[in-house]
Amino acid sequence: MKYGVAIFPSKKIQDVANSYRKRYDPHYALIPPHITIKEAFELQEEDIEEVVKQLSEVAKNTKPFSLMIHKLSTFSPVTNTIYMKVEQVEELMNLHERLNKADPIPEEDSFSFVPHITIAQKLSDDEHSDVYGSLQMQGFEFEETVTRFQLLYQLENGSWTVFETFRIGEG
Amino acid sequence: MKYGVAIFPSKKIQDVANSYRKRYDPHYALIPPHITIKEAFELQEEDIEEVVKQLSEVAKNTKPFSLMIHKLSTFSPVTNTIYMKVEQVEELMNLHERLNKADPIPEEDSFSFVPHITIAQKLSDDEHSDVYGSLQMQGFEFEETVTRFQLLYQLENGSWTVFETFRIGEG
Repeated sequence: MKYGVAIFPSKKIQDVANSYRKRYDPHYALIPPHITIKEAFELQEEDIEEVVKQLSEVAKNTKPFSLMIHKLSTFSPVTNTIYMKVEQVEELMNLHERLNKADPIPEEDSFSFVPHITIAQKLSDDEHSDVYGSLQMQGFEFEETVTRFQLLYQLENGSWTVFETFRIGEG
Repeated sequence: MKYGVAIFPSKKIQDVANSYRKRYDPHYALIPPHITIKEAFELQEEDIEEVVKQLSEVAKNTKPFSLMIHKLSTFSPVTNTIYMKVEQVEELMNLHERLNKADPIPEEDSFSFVPHITIAQKLSDDEHSDVYGSLQMQGFEFEETVTRFQLLYQLENGSWTVFETFRIGEG
């Protein structure tokens, strides 16, 4: 099965993200707005309880941290993906690092971790310029505390279901 | 905010349910296939941590139980909803009962609890007859163990995000 680990921001941020995703993100219906902290990985279903244990340990050894958003950004020209840029606070970066070292979770390719909440993707070049241009006029300012993250698995239709919640600082 | 409590069955059952929901359930994109064990209720966001505590207690005092599906059924003529009928094992019925007595969760109306996984709803009468007739020819036999349930909240677009997972027997 395919698994992944993500943070869901507050309802407030999710509602704002969805107001754009609805029009500009073909993954809109597959998963709520989120910050991926461990990219999708393949794992046998029987190994998942071991992963749960490891993630629980990681959660226990992490402190609640600030989720700060000050602006939009884009992955263009690599991909036409527009996102809310999540500030790279130390505890978030460490959390990502620890998730990559938790056996039996496969380690990620070595591209660098850019924490973000996608609000538009798979746009044409023209659409990307238009949407990015007009969205940049608007303010995106959020700050809240992250207290949990979730382990999810993917269904055959591409959508994601939560398997387990981990409380940061508790496990 | 609007909250609810649900069980997600295994990926296997969800994939089967989605193969029908995709065509016949307008809520297909709002939430994965599930068994509602506490209908949606309104609660102030600041009261949610108290609810989490209560649900954790309920989970601790529940034993893992069998989720058994032997056939389809329908809520017609009340509503044209077709569902996988979930056997009313004692522990599941008790879990529903306990969730209704856990302050500060508002108690439900007194209609009786029929555990089910919806696979089609909001059909016209003709569509309902056709779909129900043809689906009944197929076997729906599943048995698995339920080890967790989830507290979810609803976003402005009608979709649901998981807030917390509760492990049955653990909390």
